[in-house]
Amino acid sequence: MKLPDHQIRSYRDDGYLVVNRLFAPDEVDVLRTAFQHDGGIPGAHRITEKDSTEVRAVYASHRRQPEFARLVRSPRLLGPARQLVTDEVYVYQFKINTKPGFFGEGWSWHQDYAAWRIADYLPAPKLVNVGLFLDDVTEFNGPLLFLPGSHRDGLISSGRRSEATSTQHVDPEDIKLTRTEMAHLVDRHGMRSPKGAAGSVVFFHPELVHGSVANISPFGRRLVLVTYNDVTNEPQPVGKPRDWYLVEPDATSLTMVDEPLLSAGAAR
Amino acid sequence: MKLPDHQIRSYRDDGYLVVNRLFAPDEVDVLRTAFQHDGGIPGAHRITEKDSTEVRAVYASHRRQPEFARLVRSPRLLGPARQLVTDEVYVYQFKINTKPGFFGEGWSWHQDYAAWRIADYLPAPKLVNVGLFLDDVTEFNGPLLFLPGSHRDGLISSGRRSEATSTQHVDPEDIKLTRTEMAHLVDRHGMRSPKGAAGSVVFFHPELVHGSVANISPFGRRLVLVTYNDVTNEPQPVGKPRDWYLVEPDATSLTMVDEPLLSAGAAR
Repeated sequence: MKLPDHQIRSYRDDGYLVVNRLFAPDEVDVLRTAFQHDGGIPGAHRITEKDSTEVRAVYASHRRQPEFARLVRSPRLLGPARQLVTDEVYVYQFKINTKPGFFGEGWSWHQDYAAWRIADYLPAPKLVNVGLFLDDVTEFNGPLLFLPGSHRDGLISSGRRSEATSTQHVDPEDIKLTRTEMAHLVDRHGMRSPKGAAGSVVFFHPELVHGSVANISPFGRRLVLVTYNDVTNEPQPVGKPRDWYLVEPDATSLTMVDEPLLSAGAAR
Repeated sequence: MKLPDHQIRSYRDDGYLVVNRLFAPDEVDVLRTAFQHDGGIPGAHRITEKDSTEVRAVYASHRRQPEFARLVRSPRLLGPARQLVTDEVYVYQFKINTKPGFFGEGWSWHQDYAAWRIADYLPAPKLVNVGLFLDDVTEFNGPLLFLPGSHRDGLISSGRRSEATSTQHVDPEDIKLTRTEMAHLVDRHGMRSPKGAAGSVVFFHPELVHGSVANISPFGRRLVLVTYNDVTNEPQPVGKPRDWYLVEPDATSLTMVDEPLLSAGAAR
């Protein structure tokens, strides 16, 4: 799949692009089932909500579940990722944020690249985030909030996180932008909130300022987040790199595979 | 001012009614200035955000500021209140929720009448809430979330709040509906979010299920909330009644006064 020029221009201008219903309902069902299975697997790759056993985020499902392995290689994600970053990319990070109904907490205003620079010593923001909605995203279930065009400001803050702190799971709270920074940024860029039916996909820049509020609705808001990185932009960690499930150690260029997400006869 | 029949029917059906720009921008300015003045007055009537000195809510400004005294008697609020409740009403409670930018926390799903029954032994839900937007309300600054028609279910839960607890300021957290209750209610009623320009007014029923999320935008969301009660529906407190600023001890029928909010020559 190739994005037409006007969509690429829109991404360059706004720092994000929504493609509605890029995946069909039956494909979404396949991914939901795969996630249900994967979310039950214990381990450090699974992050829970504060004071709860409820899953907040799961990392690296593409390394455990064939459906997600195919997803990250599918022309519908990998094609645009190559157009938006460069021809040779790999999956830098894969996670699924659950934002469960009644419970899912918000994420502070931040830029993803700030986290990756601090935690992984990633040289440049030569990446793209791809978010696939596993649930309908509405104004009620804690949608992403974007500051359109804010990626063009580059890295706004290096983060107030102490370098001495452990750098495993970096929470946006640790790298959140200040009120003064945000007042200025919103004044210049405004706010927008990408919404859409399950199966829709949002491509967004690693320096786009974003956040979200809590989900107090009964409706979950599961979001698959695949981050593709330029193979020449490997992290340069000083000391021990972060665990494999947080940051991919193998920067081999990903091969595109045009296959159904669920193999024939592989029904769970 | 009289609401037309179709608006009254809409209120009876949905449990709320939005009237856009019922107050003009210069009137909103008058009320903002009066609130700025009033919010600086210390006392128990002023509730701050958790772990902060930031004002979360101020009670009984209509007893301190002439602009709010006129507001609660104005035909635009008192007229509809009489239509929606009964001819003889008084101000049971007056408060201003600030929901400041970057900071204002959400309110759990609840019904106001649950609080008033517990705290004040209020006999019946013969009241109407009137919310006046002092700021533009958008999807970004923590708008109210309503379950339309949920008021027709009556009181859903008596609240899990211990009767032994102090009953001064009742926080919605204390009377919040359970996840099971909410899943069922949203399934039946859906969710809606009244938004609008500053000066808009929302009338809503004391048994309408509502909540709101945090305000992470830079834009405050100040809301004047006037609750009118039927004069024959006075609280019947067992023991000491709540403080005067939380619940009005004088149930005399309010007289309508059609005057500008700011008296001539009374510029602050």
